[in-house]
Amino acid sequence: MLDKHLNLQLSDWMQQEDQPIILSSRIRLARNLENFVHPLMSDDETSEKVLQEVSDVLSEQFKAIVLRDLEVNDRQMLVIKHLVSKELLSHQSGATFLNDDESVSIMINEEDHIRIQVLGRDLSLDRLYEKAKEIDQLLDKKLTVSFDETLGYLTTCPTNIGTGLRASVMLHLPGLSIMKRMGRIAQAINRFGYTIRGIYGEGSQGLGHIYQVSNQLTLGKSEEAIINDLKQIVEQIITEEEGMRQRLLDYDYIETVDRINRSLGILKYARLISAEEASLRLSEVKMGIDMGIIPSQPFRFNELMVAIQPPFLNTINETLSINEKRAKILREHL
Amino acid sequence: MLDKHLNLQLSDWMQQEDQPIILSSRIRLARNLENFVHPLMSDDETSEKVLQEVSDVLSEQFKAIVLRDLEVNDRQMLVIKHLVSKELLSHQSGATFLNDDESVSIMINEEDHIRIQVLGRDLSLDRLYEKAKEIDQLLDKKLTVSFDETLGYLTTCPTNIGTGLRASVMLHLPGLSIMKRMGRIAQAINRFGYTIRGIYGEGSQGLGHIYQVSNQLTLGKSEEAIINDLKQIVEQIITEEEGMRQRLLDYDYIETVDRINRSLGILKYARLISAEEASLRLSEVKMGIDMGIIPSQPFRFNELMVAIQPPFLNTINETLSINEKRAKILREHL
Repeated sequence: MLDKHLNLQLSDWMQQEDQPIILSSRIRLARNLENFVHPLMSDDETSEKVLQEVSDVLSEQFKAIVLRDLEVNDRQMLVIKHLVSKELLSHQSGATFLNDDESVSIMINEEDHIRIQVLGRDLSLDRLYEKAKEIDQLLDKKLTVSFDETLGYLTTCPTNIGTGLRASVMLHLPGLSIMKRMGRIAQAINRFGYTIRGIYGEGSQGLGHIYQVSNQLTLGKSEEAIINDLKQIVEQIITEEEGMRQRLLDYDYIETVDRINRSLGILKYARLISAEEASLRLSEVKMGIDMGIIPSQPFRFNELMVAIQPPFLNTINETLSINEKRAKILREHL
Repeated sequence: MLDKHLNLQLSDWMQQEDQPIILSSRIRLARNLENFVHPLMSDDETSEKVLQEVSDVLSEQFKAIVLRDLEVNDRQMLVIKHLVSKELLSHQSGATFLNDDESVSIMINEEDHIRIQVLGRDLSLDRLYEKAKEIDQLLDKKLTVSFDETLGYLTTCPTNIGTGLRASVMLHLPGLSIMKRMGRIAQAINRFGYTIRGIYGEGSQGLGHIYQVSNQLTLGKSEEAIINDLKQIVEQIITEEEGMRQRLLDYDYIETVDRINRSLGILKYARLISAEEASLRLSEVKMGIDMGIIPSQPFRFNELMVAIQPPFLNTINETLSINEKRAKILREHL
């Protein structure tokens, strides 16, 4: 069963046709155990105890993966699939508990002792939150979770204190990105305590025009309100993205059609391609399909964006450079 | 019959499969009539008389085209097909006499009264020269051609004096061009009185990596020697081009394969393309076919290089921009 989590680019929860604009949603709850020092301060022995305690509760329902047992490349795969964070990799007792379709990943000994993550498609954040809450209650029943009557859940970093909730939505925003509106959008949503950034965190601004919107404030607002406001913000961003796409059709029609078709042609013919270029071209093809500019075709953007990353390319057993392997994968898929 | 000379991109003499490297050969003889002032100095009446005299000799065997009778766009087409020179267009009594397959074009009232041009494929310059000499003898029989016992044929520009012969070969040299060897080649052949330049003359350096090699000296050497030396020089350049292609295969194999395939992909998918980009991409695809990197396919480089020029694109009766028409033509051909 472990093989599956490592070898498939696409988690089972993603096995549906791509949607326009909304790529995925995520709920994350940060929790800590009261009788243990928090992970950044703890020694190996303590961390192992935390892992053991949590494991006793979760290992029946979930598949445990202790990262130190994996090859380096396999760890990277879990990061690329958003099942564990980069930060978790550096922790000696870092582990995750996955459900079968990989929509649930419960990270242990990350910045907090426990980070419950539930992933899903579309904007069904409420449903994802319900699922996370179930797991939270399961843990709460068996373990003593740090909680303060006034502050709420206590977390390692004060920015998570209160609900410990991070709700986020991954969006495909080529229209806003091409028309250079992302800066303005970021400013606007910051005022409401929300933030927008590139696909693999701060460092990777808008790779493939993919952006993640999430709440920054975890305190002073109920979980339901945080989620509800995020949904409204996302719907507003979607409206703006659609407006930009319409502008491209109205004012730059042939340039847009040319750009999208060239990207398709290059993906089908290139023999060497960097991750940056591939992301951009895949993004433009997705936009072209979603806008009806190129015929609808079996095209899994989410899957391809993962398949072109080095951890997956490294598993191809041929004496090709990474850029050759990437080009090969793309030719085969398109 | 005139329609044919104007509407087909490809002259009949070119109706064969493309060859690698050698695109076409050309012989040109410059002649003037003794009893008329040379065209650059002559008035309209004199030029008309020249045209009339020549017409009396040629109009039975050749189709006369007087440029002032054509639409502007049709004149441009003849230039693109190398049947008349740009310079001829500006002359009030400019005309040409064509044979049926367009391998012969006899320009009247260009820089000289008469310029006999014979075009062909491969390196058969001797055969082309024989054909030009036949026409020269026909004219000589009926008209008084300016000739000096010491200097030879008298021409308007002293650089043509003597034989009045310009022998040239059009070559496809992407290897030398990509590897930046053209400067050195030009220097080397200049020492022997030969020159190399871009496809449509000095101004268009190496468009599509196409270069024309020709003699500069017309005096002090027999026609046969001029042609023979040119053939040797061309064979030397071909050897160097083949060497450069081999180097690309040996040292930059995957980059070369990528570059060629991307060009093919872009030609098949672009919706907007400039003449410069199209020429370059067609050139790379031709190189790819000739090097066996992409499968041999019906691909007429000579024809496409003409078909993508504005005079031919202007005849497409659709409300598209010129760059859209060019992309459309290319998609349809590839």
